[in-house]
Amino acid sequence: MTPITRNIGILGAGQLGRMLAMAGYPLGQKFGFYGFSKDEPSAMLGHMFTHDDEVDALEQLINWADVVTYESENTDPAVVDAIEAAGVPVLPGRDALYYSQHRGREKTLFRELGIPTAPFRVVDSEAALAQAVREIGLPAIAKTTTGGYDGKGQYRLKTAVEVPEAWRTLGGRELIVEGFVPFERELSMLAARGRDGQMVFWPLVENVHHEGILRLTRAPAEDVDPDTEQAAQGYLRRLMERLDYVGVLALELFDTADGLVANEMAPRVHNSGHWSIEGADTSQFENHVRALVGLPLGSTRPVSPWCAMINIIGETGPVEEALRLPGVHVHLYDKAERPGRKLGHINVVAGSRHELEARLQVLAPFLP
Amino acid sequence: MTPITRNIGILGAGQLGRMLAMAGYPLGQKFGFYGFSKDEPSAMLGHMFTHDDEVDALEQLINWADVVTYESENTDPAVVDAIEAAGVPVLPGRDALYYSQHRGREKTLFRELGIPTAPFRVVDSEAALAQAVREIGLPAIAKTTTGGYDGKGQYRLKTAVEVPEAWRTLGGRELIVEGFVPFERELSMLAARGRDGQMVFWPLVENVHHEGILRLTRAPAEDVDPDTEQAAQGYLRRLMERLDYVGVLALELFDTADGLVANEMAPRVHNSGHWSIEGADTSQFENHVRALVGLPLGSTRPVSPWCAMINIIGETGPVEEALRLPGVHVHLYDKAERPGRKLGHINVVAGSRHELEARLQVLAPFLP
Repeated sequence: MTPITRNIGILGAGQLGRMLAMAGYPLGQKFGFYGFSKDEPSAMLGHMFTHDDEVDALEQLINWADVVTYESENTDPAVVDAIEAAGVPVLPGRDALYYSQHRGREKTLFRELGIPTAPFRVVDSEAALAQAVREIGLPAIAKTTTGGYDGKGQYRLKTAVEVPEAWRTLGGRELIVEGFVPFERELSMLAARGRDGQMVFWPLVENVHHEGILRLTRAPAEDVDPDTEQAAQGYLRRLMERLDYVGVLALELFDTADGLVANEMAPRVHNSGHWSIEGADTSQFENHVRALVGLPLGSTRPVSPWCAMINIIGETGPVEEALRLPGVHVHLYDKAERPGRKLGHINVVAGSRHELEARLQVLAPFLP
Repeated sequence: MTPITRNIGILGAGQLGRMLAMAGYPLGQKFGFYGFSKDEPSAMLGHMFTHDDEVDALEQLINWADVVTYESENTDPAVVDAIEAAGVPVLPGRDALYYSQHRGREKTLFRELGIPTAPFRVVDSEAALAQAVREIGLPAIAKTTTGGYDGKGQYRLKTAVEVPEAWRTLGGRELIVEGFVPFERELSMLAARGRDGQMVFWPLVENVHHEGILRLTRAPAEDVDPDTEQAAQGYLRRLMERLDYVGVLALELFDTADGLVANEMAPRVHNSGHWSIEGADTSQFENHVRALVGLPLGSTRPVSPWCAMINIIGETGPVEEALRLPGVHVHLYDKAERPGRKLGHINVVAGSRHELEARLQVLAPFLP
């Protein structure tokens, strides 16, 4: 009757690992992190295998872990391969990384699965970029096919004259060019799939970005009709089944006059799911851990129709004021202040719309 | 604007330390534990200073910690004194330990503060025990004045004939004899006091014990009139002010036809407050940490009038079944199974009385 206890290895030791560990210890799991240094956000919450200090850190991790997951879609595939070669499963798995590490492959997969996307072309020369812009039309967005996050590695083209500058600015490397999607708002949906194929879906949430960085999530998103919710669930279901996915998958979507358009996926717990720690019956972190170790996935029901998450960016801000508010939960990541850096987040749960807005008003200093 | 980050030392490395750490990391705090071994429940959640392995463990703890708290009222006062002598504050403080380590002193303090108790006598011979039983009347309960927990170190006297056996069974040492309180139910209240004197109170909760061990807490307790709630708050307020208390204090009470009668206090986070992790706006663990580091205390409001906590005792039980239920949160302590041992607890939050009872029905295998 004893539940499965596993040593869970995490590639990375940032805030996602930290929150995975805090969600997993109550389930009796143990955590170890493959990271840069003993100062990282996860370092005090389990074993640290530091690859810069210890030549055999990866070997130690492999010997210790029963299962491994990753914090980032930019995880080195060679590391994943080495772990799997030693017989330790890496979840959500190699396929998910293969597609999400390359924007061209990812968008092609979306298209194959009937998931709407902006029109796109993959190009590897300035001439091809110019040609793609002619075909797709302007405005358009050029992005590096690999790397880049939080709005980095992107160039918005308004006129064809900008093609040479875009090509130069992005480093003269392979790009994806996407048509501009006239969206009303940015949404995302998170889902989890268990080792047995069980799937659960959190509701669509609404995200507000500023300078490419997520600042505010409202969960659930307001005024979503059931067909839209169903459509998003269908996209995630197809992706997870196609990738034989285990764990939490995030899908960013544009809400347009013509319906949802997929932007990108993240094969991991995701910033737009942080609200779920106090805002849902089971958080994204807990269900990711449950999936890794083969425990049943928990209910994703929001505990209130009025939840929100505010990112703490760059400087910590008036955290003591936030702590005085009922229904407000502060999550700091133990990171030093630096412009644009994610230092923590604040979850807000309220009993009514009015209460939520009143609390967000007090928390306005945390917003741009 | 950066919040106060402190190294918090905990004397003990059991489940209370584990849950304090998990509540405190999101506030940006760091944790270290002064314990027996690296297998204890807290061991992976911070630094371990193991007093059996390292001769200078206490010195290391003192050098590392900014503030120290304790898991148990049975903490060695010499250890507390050594830490304070080195200039590191130990909270809730030496006074709270002085009274709660001796049932005679504790009950005398209650009496001084006008907090109702059962009639009691402190005795240190078999003859004095016989005399006390004559004065107080039967039935009566004899308890060792120091040590003892979860019903250990107690003898229920039904007839005067049992006096010699009670004296012998309890080890021929100083005892407190208490008159029997005909109670309707067992309640408890937890409160927290900050360094600035701010006080917050969780609601009265109802506790069900079996063989001296807490098995079920319902939070809030049902059918409590406002006068009773106020009375209990007054008792805790007087105790915390008298002891210049900082942190969480628990007070166990009998609910009788003549009102509340205090049983005992615990100068620490308490099993009957575990429901507050998901059941209250701010948990006992989080408010204890906030008090230690001087952050404002958070709202203690229950998130629903229908919360409960079930202890997992002796064997882990059908945890996977529990994980399938919405509103149910499993907290395991990473301890091996052993009869009577607290291995974890399950919190249940429900939207209605009916829903709560239905969930408790499924969780019945965890109850005696």
